[in-house]
Amino acid sequence: MLTNRPTYQVSRRASYLERSVLRGLLKHAVDPSLISLAGGLPADEDLPTEQLNQCMNIVLKRDGAAALQYSPAYAALHEWIADYMLRRNIACSPENIFITNGNQQGLSILSRLFLDEGKTAVIEEAVFTGTQQGTKGVGANVVTIPTDLAHGADVHHLETVLEQHDVKLMALIPDFHNPLGVSMTENNRRRVAELAARYHVPVLEDDAYSQLRFTGRILPPIRAFDTSGYVFYLGSFSKMLAPGLRLGFMVIPESLQPKITVIRESIDLETSTLMQRTVAEFLHRGYLEPHIEKLRQSLKIRAEALMTALDKHLSDIATWTVPEGGLFTWCVLPENVDTWQLFDEALDAGVVYIPGGAFSVNGGHKNTMRLNFSRVAPETFDEGIKRLSAVIRKAL
Amino acid sequence: MLTNRPTYQVSRRASYLERSVLRGLLKHAVDPSLISLAGGLPADEDLPTEQLNQCMNIVLKRDGAAALQYSPAYAALHEWIADYMLRRNIACSPENIFITNGNQQGLSILSRLFLDEGKTAVIEEAVFTGTQQGTKGVGANVVTIPTDLAHGADVHHLETVLEQHDVKLMALIPDFHNPLGVSMTENNRRRVAELAARYHVPVLEDDAYSQLRFTGRILPPIRAFDTSGYVFYLGSFSKMLAPGLRLGFMVIPESLQPKITVIRESIDLETSTLMQRTVAEFLHRGYLEPHIEKLRQSLKIRAEALMTALDKHLSDIATWTVPEGGLFTWCVLPENVDTWQLFDEALDAGVVYIPGGAFSVNGGHKNTMRLNFSRVAPETFDEGIKRLSAVIRKAL
Repeated sequence: MLTNRPTYQVSRRASYLERSVLRGLLKHAVDPSLISLAGGLPADEDLPTEQLNQCMNIVLKRDGAAALQYSPAYAALHEWIADYMLRRNIACSPENIFITNGNQQGLSILSRLFLDEGKTAVIEEAVFTGTQQGTKGVGANVVTIPTDLAHGADVHHLETVLEQHDVKLMALIPDFHNPLGVSMTENNRRRVAELAARYHVPVLEDDAYSQLRFTGRILPPIRAFDTSGYVFYLGSFSKMLAPGLRLGFMVIPESLQPKITVIRESIDLETSTLMQRTVAEFLHRGYLEPHIEKLRQSLKIRAEALMTALDKHLSDIATWTVPEGGLFTWCVLPENVDTWQLFDEALDAGVVYIPGGAFSVNGGHKNTMRLNFSRVAPETFDEGIKRLSAVIRKAL
Repeated sequence: MLTNRPTYQVSRRASYLERSVLRGLLKHAVDPSLISLAGGLPADEDLPTEQLNQCMNIVLKRDGAAALQYSPAYAALHEWIADYMLRRNIACSPENIFITNGNQQGLSILSRLFLDEGKTAVIEEAVFTGTQQGTKGVGANVVTIPTDLAHGADVHHLETVLEQHDVKLMALIPDFHNPLGVSMTENNRRRVAELAARYHVPVLEDDAYSQLRFTGRILPPIRAFDTSGYVFYLGSFSKMLAPGLRLGFMVIPESLQPKITVIRESIDLETSTLMQRTVAEFLHRGYLEPHIEKLRQSLKIRAEALMTALDKHLSDIATWTVPEGGLFTWCVLPENVDTWQLFDEALDAGVVYIPGGAFSVNGGHKNTMRLNFSRVAPETFDEGIKRLSAVIRKAL
């Protein structure tokens, strides 16, 4: 029983962080009574639940308690990932792999490594809220660059910022950008690697989605063009496999392993060895490729259904990015439409999305929305976009 | 291929962190060719591996993909923990429970919440390195208080520090202190709660071990005496169940939930829903109490064997804390003995421990060592301490 309601004096740093609207909206994303284009989750039927269960059982039977103790890094997982990275033209060895609880943790660790309060980080103007929280959360001064809806992050603008500011870290999402759904061109990836080398500024390449490509050619990551050691690659099993595993990894210079390890330990010691071993078993058994192939097909069908519905119901008043992979498209409406204001009406009409403004660092993007296509049944998109269209047209 | 070996400009904050000797020594802790008194791990045979495997299978069969997605807080786990806290005289509801990846994450989150660079935190002078990293890692100025080997943290000294410094956070381990093995008296717990209220300083009560009491009466946590809202309780399933689950929790004021949630999200979004559901199932099935009872018996037998061995081989030259629970005893040797220097010789003799100095915030404690009794077979302690005694006596 409290005698008085206390007022807590919180840190200045904590005041930089604001609750993500996106995370708050996730509850709608899983409400079965709605057509939800709001989430960033794979469809339940696209998760390899039985195979993961099988792998967990194998690990617990084989390794017993060792899979439930604190544990040094699990070598088999490091080796598999290093080999997988080699196939993506990333020169590395198991010593360059650092296991995380997903890309957000990698972002958080590297932000703490490179950023002090008031130092400058470059991020994209419309970007995943986690990227904003990871950099702003350590008190960084955030400078933004625009993202072209056809070619990804504006590298020319990036160069100007690097010339004008003492930048300590840049963070980019080159593949199937969240929320924009666009990918950077191969040439621009090369240029980013060159800029990182020239300005000696670490670039954090956040790759959660590149394997989810269902059309076109898989592009090499920025890290594949790195000859300087300034490109830090972040990979995740959240979208390739399952978010609930909380498993990701970074490719980092071996010289930074001790420092990164101690930052990680200060945060939460280490990643569950059971999860590491389970995923290693999944990979070892060759389950990943067939799973991803199935996932790509599923995403392709869903994305096409969404594109068809958008063409049918919104082509006269809206434009959108045409995704070649990933989970999202970005829809731009007439300038007088405010997607924040429409949200409740859309909810009443039984359809939800994320207002584009939720991803904006500087405010704005009010006439945009992020639409997710990974979770809804293909035959549902037509009805969902029809409802959305009716709500939007009332506001025109 | 790197053209040059780059020099990275790391943050000032990152420079505060030093690699924990303790974590580096964990590799010895699991080397089967040694008698290891170094670790902080439960014995493999004391982990409920089969029951956890059963619960995981139940969850994955019952919940399917929902157990592998991103997910809102798992209500059943919050409810169980709130009820469990009530039984420990902590007034709280499910809304006061915040799930973490273990107590280190709770410490890290609350340090970020309450501490800015250069602000003052109070910790014990000899303490778990994670406590040091959590507070120093956010750039806090750390002021220490001594810990009495009979009564725990020196509360009189604590009050003096609170009078003299503008303290923003205190962190204490009241039960079966790591590394000292001592517990705070009930009266001192009450006084700490009063001091927190009087000085409006949050106290972080790190309770990883209280359930591992094998003799004497379980004492109420500091939080049980809290009428001010300034006591933050951190609980963990790492020692009660298994470290590899990476599951802990905090009891926090509801008013701070949004701020703590956003700090957590900036670090790594959320805790694995599969782990949350698996542990909830374990708890729901009533497996915890019988498991802890078995664990207590096991620890009791091991601790008694260690005490017997210490009496037999070292009573003429050493003193040590007599644990009533937990995993550790703290052994104090003659002042001219340096346990850092003896470490390699002990390793050669086939026995390892953690030099007490590894836990010291200000240096010192060179003639001490932390001995773990949770992992070694009871019949092994005699040989282990005999070897240790021989190594020590050579140095006298």
